[in-house]
Amino acid sequence: MLDIRFEKTTAPKQIPGKEDPLTFGTIFTDHMFIMNYETGKGWHDARVVPYQPIVLQPSAMVFHYGQEMFEGLKAYKTAEGKTLLFRPDKNIERANRTNERICIPTIPEEDFLQAIKAVVKADEAWIPEKEGTSLYIRPFIIATDPFLGVRPSDTYMFIIILSPVGAYYPEGLNPVKIWIEDEYVRAVKGGIGEAKTGGNYVASLKSQVKAHDAGYSQVLWLDGVERKYIEEVGAMNIFFKINGTVVTPMLNGSILPGVTRDSVIALCKEWGIPVEEKRISIDDIFEAAHNGTLEEVWGTGTAAVISPVGHLRWGEHVMQVQDGGIGPVSQKLYDTVTGIQTGKVEDTLGWTVEV
Amino acid sequence: MLDIRFEKTTAPKQIPGKEDPLTFGTIFTDHMFIMNYETGKGWHDARVVPYQPIVLQPSAMVFHYGQEMFEGLKAYKTAEGKTLLFRPDKNIERANRTNERICIPTIPEEDFLQAIKAVVKADEAWIPEKEGTSLYIRPFIIATDPFLGVRPSDTYMFIIILSPVGAYYPEGLNPVKIWIEDEYVRAVKGGIGEAKTGGNYVASLKSQVKAHDAGYSQVLWLDGVERKYIEEVGAMNIFFKINGTVVTPMLNGSILPGVTRDSVIALCKEWGIPVEEKRISIDDIFEAAHNGTLEEVWGTGTAAVISPVGHLRWGEHVMQVQDGGIGPVSQKLYDTVTGIQTGKVEDTLGWTVEV
Ligand SMILES: Cc1ncc(COP(=O)(O)O)c(C=O)c1O
Ligand SMILES: Cc1ncc(COP(=O)(O)O)c(C=O)c1O
Repeated sequence: MLDIRFEKTTAPKQIPGKEDPLTFGTIFTDHMFIMNYETGKGWHDARVVPYQPIVLQPSAMVFHYGQEMFEGLKAYKTAEGKTLLFRPDKNIERANRTNERICIPTIPEEDFLQAIKAVVKADEAWIPEKEGTSLYIRPFIIATDPFLGVRPSDTYMFIIILSPVGAYYPEGLNPVKIWIEDEYVRAVKGGIGEAKTGGNYVASLKSQVKAHDAGYSQVLWLDGVERKYIEEVGAMNIFFKINGTVVTPMLNGSILPGVTRDSVIALCKEWGIPVEEKRISIDDIFEAAHNGTLEEVWGTGTAAVISPVGHLRWGEHVMQVQDGGIGPVSQKLYDTVTGIQTGKVEDTLGWTVEV
Repeated sequence: MLDIRFEKTTAPKQIPGKEDPLTFGTIFTDHMFIMNYETGKGWHDARVVPYQPIVLQPSAMVFHYGQEMFEGLKAYKTAEGKTLLFRPDKNIERANRTNERICIPTIPEEDFLQAIKAVVKADEAWIPEKEGTSLYIRPFIIATDPFLGVRPSDTYMFIIILSPVGAYYPEGLNPVKIWIEDEYVRAVKGGIGEAKTGGNYVASLKSQVKAHDAGYSQVLWLDGVERKYIEEVGAMNIFFKINGTVVTPMLNGSILPGVTRDSVIALCKEWGIPVEEKRISIDDIFEAAHNGTLEEVWGTGTAAVISPVGHLRWGEHVMQVQDGGIGPVSQKLYDTVTGIQTGKVEDTLGWTVEV
């Protein structure tokens, strides 16, 4: 149990109005959570303080050697005014797996949850209520030793910031166009692909710019070894419905084990839709697109929840998804997941946690 | 030509004394160089200012998505009191290649060199003179947009800090023991391995800790695809002298093109020692170690210059390098490179640049 000190802001900011349009990740609330780590002392000095800049030595290791991790989850307001978190235990578990992979000290799960609840509670008034909006929660840890050799840091800051958000993709629930990358690689087995750490995202920027310039909103990665197995999208896992069966790449060490991915698999199973986690080659998808069995494609992620895909491009080939619109399974998944998140659909799986 | 503003420190720190022992990357000089970038405005506001903390929003992209790059080079004092940089053009070229790979705006080469010279000049008194010491120069760029979506930042800071340094490895010129990693992978072709960016270093921490715990000072990486070709060491390129020929892994897209590596190849060629850049499998090395033709092994890097390797471990196998001490080619390379760097050996190749 953390002893969290609370320093309330004396200069509260203007909370966006109910009808103000919200983008993603541009405005932040009045408070943030901070906790420090020092070898020998452990995690200490937990506090909720006014949202404020971070002051670091220029030699701080995070600026040089990328020892940084993050998570992303959301808080929602229900019609009854309750605040719900969606499967925070999954994010916390994953955070600690990331920590282990990149030599950051883990955080006790109950302390992590307490920290999230404390800061969300402090800024509860910031949770937007309009359809499709939520309070995005960004926990992250940075290495702060002022030292220029490569080794794990002895000091860290664990920070949680909050941002009221609207749709992640300007397209909303309209199908996005996806670029299948065949030149650059995001991650490889044995590397850091399954960890949520900056290095994976910086590796993706160049492809993303290339895809955007060609009119595509997201990049789909292939594996780094054989360059033919489907991995994941920039910030989403990917699902295909082919001839009645839902398939998604198995967790192989190089893709992020998404919380939304896990939830979608569980829901499909509950609904009796056959679902398989397996190696999927790009040739399989190409074939399905061409013989008319590629019924639906969608990405899953905290930011967009479910993002239907209408069109994929792989080198010279363009693959169209059956009807090009949002398919029935994608729609049902979106309605169910967002329904559970906002308390509109009964949470039979025990996924939500009240703040 | 940059217009560099100079704000001199009013609180100069104590410069380490001639006989004070120096470690690596722990103390910093009185000044630092800073320049900002903003889309539309370009690089601007070049300044040399007192060494000071960096103040960033918690949402600054560098903390989340690893968009950061760095370089490392050194300044030396000659017996005549001149200040020399070693091949700064190579570091600057590489910096811009890194920038391009990770979508950071490039910096005109002459401006980059001018910036290095300006800050080194300001803190020239900090350059240590004892054998084996130097002033380590760390240019780096960080992405500063306060935004939580994955895309290249629109704002950056370019910073140069300076640190008087002694030996990088406590072993000095004594042979180090190297652990050949067969579980984790640092980088793969198509990824960011040839760029000098944090993501490659964070990926290496876990192996490094494992190797250290087993009594090894460095990790040697194998390729991420076939897991059998030699790549490089944590912060060094690697060379083997086998049966009279010097071999080193070719630049394949996943290893850093080291400046010291390039210099060593050039010197070997000048001396008429056969040198080959090629794919080298771990089996080749294993065989050479066992048939007695593995004459010398050394790492090359700015920090340690030449670091002889006496012993390599690959799973259950231990490979001893012929005499286990520092070999004649390693020694001659060390003497020549450090000699040129400090003005003791004639710089026939035009590698040094006076500040
Ligand atoms: C690389 C990557 N893959 C997948 C996901 C989806 O994971 P989740 O459903 O937990 O948000 C994300 C985003 O969080 C991501 O960054
Ligand atoms: C991964 C890696 N490889 C090799 C090197 C050696 O490069 P250089 O000789 O330019 O210092 C370094 C250090 O700079 C490095 O970080």
